Amino acid sequence: MGVKVLTISEDILSANEEIARNNQNQLDKHGILAVNVMSSPGAGKTSLILQTISRLKETVRIAVIEGDVASTIDADKINKQGVTAIQINTAGGCHLDANMLEKALNNLPLKDIDLLLIENVGNLICPAEFALGEHKRVMLLSVPEGDDKVYKYPLMFTEADVVFINKVDLLPLLEFDVASFTKAVSGLNPKVKVFQVSAKTGQGLEGWFSWLQEQIKETKSRHGS
Amino acid sequence: MGVKVLTISEDILSANEEIARNNQNQLDKHGILAVNVMSSPGAGKTSLILQTISRLKETVRIAVIEGDVASTIDADKINKQGVTAIQINTAGGCHLDANMLEKALNNLPLKDIDLLLIENVGNLICPAEFALGEHKRVMLLSVPEGDDKVYKYPLMFTEADVVFINKVDLLPLLEFDVASFTKAVSGLNPKVKVFQVSAKTGQGLEGWFSWLQEQIKETKSRHGS
Repeated sequence: MGVKVLTISEDILSANEEIARNNQNQLDKHGILAVNVMSSPGAGKTSLILQTISRLKETVRIAVIEGDVASTIDADKINKQGVTAIQINTAGGCHLDANMLEKALNNLPLKDIDLLLIENVGNLICPAEFALGEHKRVMLLSVPEGDDKVYKYPLMFTEADVVFINKVDLLPLLEFDVASFTKAVSGLNPKVKVFQVSAKTGQGLEGWFSWLQEQIKETKSRHGS
Repeated sequence: MGVKVLTISEDILSANEEIARNNQNQLDKHGILAVNVMSSPGAGKTSLILQTISRLKETVRIAVIEGDVASTIDADKINKQGVTAIQINTAGGCHLDANMLEKALNNLPLKDIDLLLIENVGNLICPAEFALGEHKRVMLLSVPEGDDKVYKYPLMFTEADVVFINKVDLLPLLEFDVASFTKAVSGLNPKVKVFQVSAKTGQGLEGWFSWLQEQIKETKSRHGS
């Protein structure tokens, strides 16, 4: 099956927050948990999503929205797994916004979805500033990026519900102080969950799958009540 | 010596291009070559600048402008090398702009500088859209980010005079097709120079040093004539 491409020019709306609330209402109406996945380019967002699909797709109905400046590379990968994927091309825009999510939601079969994974544009700055209507925010920081990024890009780490330290297979080769990084993240954001993983090999992802299944269950129970 | 910090709120000016031209005129008046260094977070901009300082500082008078959302980590590193460094904190802004460079130039001893290295905010998207007044643009793509980034972030690769494939010491461990990546970059941007380097160890940097010295010489000869 082909990938649907929506080309949406960047439009920084003052109404972003209001549209985000409307999006969340629409998601809640259908009992869908929406997760915004953020990181630098190449830090492992798509690999994390592919692992999550592979592990949960027999029990959870998943859809994916892929945000990129250009190309359909990532949506094509998701699509090959038999999961509905919509590609949003931002045409230069450096983040998704609530308006873009609204357009994507209008193109998804919402009554057939339990979990919506939204891969934001690869960028450690702006995506954290724009609510989409998601329920949870997760971010990946990959080991090769360095352990000083929490000081340089504090907002992303402050806003996240989950922080992944990804590419831990490279830890023996690179200078990355996991203990001091984790301490710095927890200092900014005491409620954050930190997982050390390899999104490529699947190492360390069990905690993430459990956490995610718990969130899906809570969403369903709120929806049912 | 302490690091000077300028905190500048993001201000997307329609006049950016005009201020950039004024900045370039001011640089030209002093015979300064200005190079805008761009990449994703953690791809190796600061390491490249530190290697360049180490190799050229005996023969070239260098100053550095460090752009970051927050922190003075990078300017502190430069400063330790005995080189003048100004830190611009963008307070959330995801790129430098010409206005910020103008303020920084007003704080630099322009008559004592041959080479101005400007480290942009870690971001593969927006920095390419905002001229600062620089003469040359260089960008780093690090091996762990993946060889598909040229398709996802085409503008940055189109605008660059030099593209570094950085962290080549990780090539044996990761899937990164140097030949197809280089072909894709050259397809977008036929005049670009591509260097395969390790900014950490210095591997492969001789071509860059030669290219840079040639540009400095040309700038001086234009200035002298």
